[in-house]
Amino acid sequence: MSAPNPNPGRLVLVPNTLDLGTDIEVELGEVLPQAVIARAARLGFWVCENAKTTRALLKRVDRLVPLTLPLQQIQISELPRPPKGGAARGATAAAPDLKPLLAPARAGHDVGLLSEAGLPAVADPGAALVQTAHAMGIAVEPLAGPSSLLLALAASGLNGQSFAFVGYLPVEASARAARIRELEVFSKRHGQTQLAIETPYRNDALLGALIEHLQPGTRLSIASGLTLPGCRCETRSVQQWRASKQPALGGRLPTVFSWLAG
Amino acid sequence: MSAPNPNPGRLVLVPNTLDLGTDIEVELGEVLPQAVIARAARLGFWVCENAKTTRALLKRVDRLVPLTLPLQQIQISELPRPPKGGAARGATAAAPDLKPLLAPARAGHDVGLLSEAGLPAVADPGAALVQTAHAMGIAVEPLAGPSSLLLALAASGLNGQSFAFVGYLPVEASARAARIRELEVFSKRHGQTQLAIETPYRNDALLGALIEHLQPGTRLSIASGLTLPGCRCETRSVQQWRASKQPALGGRLPTVFSWLAG
Repeated sequence: MSAPNPNPGRLVLVPNTLDLGTDIEVELGEVLPQAVIARAARLGFWVCENAKTTRALLKRVDRLVPLTLPLQQIQISELPRPPKGGAARGATAAAPDLKPLLAPARAGHDVGLLSEAGLPAVADPGAALVQTAHAMGIAVEPLAGPSSLLLALAASGLNGQSFAFVGYLPVEASARAARIRELEVFSKRHGQTQLAIETPYRNDALLGALIEHLQPGTRLSIASGLTLPGCRCETRSVQQWRASKQPALGGRLPTVFSWLAG
Repeated sequence: MSAPNPNPGRLVLVPNTLDLGTDIEVELGEVLPQAVIARAARLGFWVCENAKTTRALLKRVDRLVPLTLPLQQIQISELPRPPKGGAARGATAAAPDLKPLLAPARAGHDVGLLSEAGLPAVADPGAALVQTAHAMGIAVEPLAGPSSLLLALAASGLNGQSFAFVGYLPVEASARAARIRELEVFSKRHGQTQLAIETPYRNDALLGALIEHLQPGTRLSIASGLTLPGCRCETRSVQQWRASKQPALGGRLPTVFSWLAG
């Protein structure tokens, strides 16, 4: 931490909408506070997963609050892509040096961090940049915005006093079944709600596997298309899910799955 | 589910600000989307933890978007208080019948559910009402808003791909130390970030205990006064925390603690 700037900028965590990859574009005012939209309009430096979707968001911001700088003058840097399949654990250990991405903060400018959906640095590669900011002594400021995981938990009616997000389950069927059973045992022992997500085109396969492998008395919840028109939040026992026709989630809507053993 | 209403209302999960119990009143537009404020202004039926703080919020809403009904005509019902110390697990099993609170939804009116801070039904007693709504076939609609737990996680730079919220730790010192160590072992084995909260007047005691009992290489994060001016988000190794003077969190600011074993 040599030669600290007396007036460094901050790393500002800017929430995104939850409509990525869907055919729907929600109004920003439905999901983001007005002050957050205004703050985003003033930022001249961004770090993100995808520069193209960041520019698309900034165009939506501009329609509500004119951008301080012309879009072409806003500096947008992409995070290095995480190694394939290595995102779950310890992936940041071998990560490249992210300090250059925070050089504008050292020089006194706020830097926005944006994820593809919802809060940055949750279920995405942004956490490594936040870690770097802390190590550099750069202040980190999270702005209020939606998290699909927590909206799903709230809407589930399952235990919100104790819960875990376990990320993605294995894709291979027998490994997935084993993982589902392992998490259910843990849920039963600790009264802990388990949350998982899946790439949308595999949502129906995951729902089928959960209905097949969880115990009949376990309550299973789906939250699909959160904050979008036609948003669908349903919680039933596995027994009830089995007795009804499995709903088709389709391959586009982001969906959060949660369950609590009875 | 006899005699279902063909046009039932919904249970609408309305996020609250994060300034309860502090001396600060944030502008609603800093933390809540404009459409959420407008939706809150239209609701004539509410279920909440505390009618007084709900009325205070509705007065803040009214300054931005005039309430559809006069405040005195809005029906505000409090959730039954959970049995003391029994909130963590299985508390809903013996809960009183909450169906009467949803009678307005049966009659075709949307009912708002509000917590004292952030998202309802997360780390508060509202989940039982959501559960009742699902059982009655009443649609549940969560509105976008901030969760202090997820803002803290995002700002921590710790693992956002796998995390657990474990609620409150024991107050008694030796039980608390044992629980801290147990959670750290789990964090190390599974690479999982652990999140906990405490009643604000015990924040400094919990921080002291975490610094004392966690391993030197574990990273420990505090997020205090989220979304408020002077919000403070710091992540350091336990070794670094020990080498510096423990910051005084004071007894009023809501604080989220998180840690990840190295």
